[in-house]
Amino acid sequence: MEYPSKLLTEVIEEIAKLPGIGKRTALRLALHLLKQPVEQSQNLGQAIQKFRTGIKHCRICHNISDKEVCDICSNPVRNHQLICVVEDIRDVMAIESTGEFKGVYHVLGGLISPLEGVGPSDLTIDKLIQRLQNENVDEIVLALSSTVDGDTTNFYLYRKISNLPVHQPKISIIARGISIGEELEYADEVTLARSILNRIPFEKSIKQK
Amino acid sequence: MEYPSKLLTEVIEEIAKLPGIGKRTALRLALHLLKQPVEQSQNLGQAIQKFRTGIKHCRICHNISDKEVCDICSNPVRNHQLICVVEDIRDVMAIESTGEFKGVYHVLGGLISPLEGVGPSDLTIDKLIQRLQNENVDEIVLALSSTVDGDTTNFYLYRKISNLPVHQPKISIIARGISIGEELEYADEVTLARSILNRIPFEKSIKQK
Repeated sequence: MEYPSKLLTEVIEEIAKLPGIGKRTALRLALHLLKQPVEQSQNLGQAIQKFRTGIKHCRICHNISDKEVCDICSNPVRNHQLICVVEDIRDVMAIESTGEFKGVYHVLGGLISPLEGVGPSDLTIDKLIQRLQNENVDEIVLALSSTVDGDTTNFYLYRKISNLPVHQPKISIIARGISIGEELEYADEVTLARSILNRIPFEKSIKQK
Repeated sequence: MEYPSKLLTEVIEEIAKLPGIGKRTALRLALHLLKQPVEQSQNLGQAIQKFRTGIKHCRICHNISDKEVCDICSNPVRNHQLICVVEDIRDVMAIESTGEFKGVYHVLGGLISPLEGVGPSDLTIDKLIQRLQNENVDEIVLALSSTVDGDTTNFYLYRKISNLPVHQPKISIIARGISIGEELEYADEVTLARSILNRIPFEKSIKQK
């Protein structure tokens, strides 16, 4: 489709580079901006540029941050001997919003995926090993997605960490099982089997909210 | 949800102001930009600002344009005595892409909508009347959506134009009927009734591709 203006063509092409946004949606968004005050477009344009050029990754956990070391890693109240390994920063936000984890994080930046050509060296695994060598970590919690790539990464990390010549942390993995509010008959067999194998004492469960 | 960075919070808030984009999608888009080269974010941010501040509306037809007068209005080959009235610039693009209209346009910038508080004075109707008074227009084609607001606007324009003390243009309206490729049994009754009432000679139809 041909657009009546070069400026419109340019903005549509740039917006349509975003994932899940086609040229038709990009046109709709551009025309929407045209009906809003000029400031909105200026704020949006500047926020995008400032975000991309100004954002930093925490040099300890690789979570994104405005500072060299993120708020979680620099918080003395958190348990720095307990590290939760996650795929990306959205997982950090999801776990933080539960309010149930008092340790710190390590953001891998992805999962090992032979199909997509992502190997261990593309992730921050070496940095995790360094952390384990420099600090006395008690426990590593693997909190990756329950997918083939997640399992591959879990096994790789498990082998790597348990072969460390230094102090060995305990390695745990988040529980797989029936979701809260899920009906048993709709659960898949593997999940159901795991939830039976990994059953916990009832008294423990009623103490959790 | 709390974000680990002020820059991230800002960009998410600005992106989520766009229609149909929530905070979750905005976060996904921001994290996507983070994985792309810095230039992409800079180009996107600049394109949005340049578009909003640089775009003009053609002073004749109100289509958006980079110039004072758009390419269609300044094209001597087009029939300037034939004006197609549309709601917004997307309709101009849609009709242009058919290649079947050789006249010029008038973009209203919306439809009369008592429910949404849009009155005739919010649209470019006065400018259309001016055009009719200054130029000798042969025909006005009303090409508005087939909705309540579209019909209201059609009637308003019809009354206004047919009461003009100057040269009266012919007023026509685009055909309503069964879409090409549509099965008859799934068409609604009103459309089907219109397509029967407004039937055309078969010979005329086969000459159209």
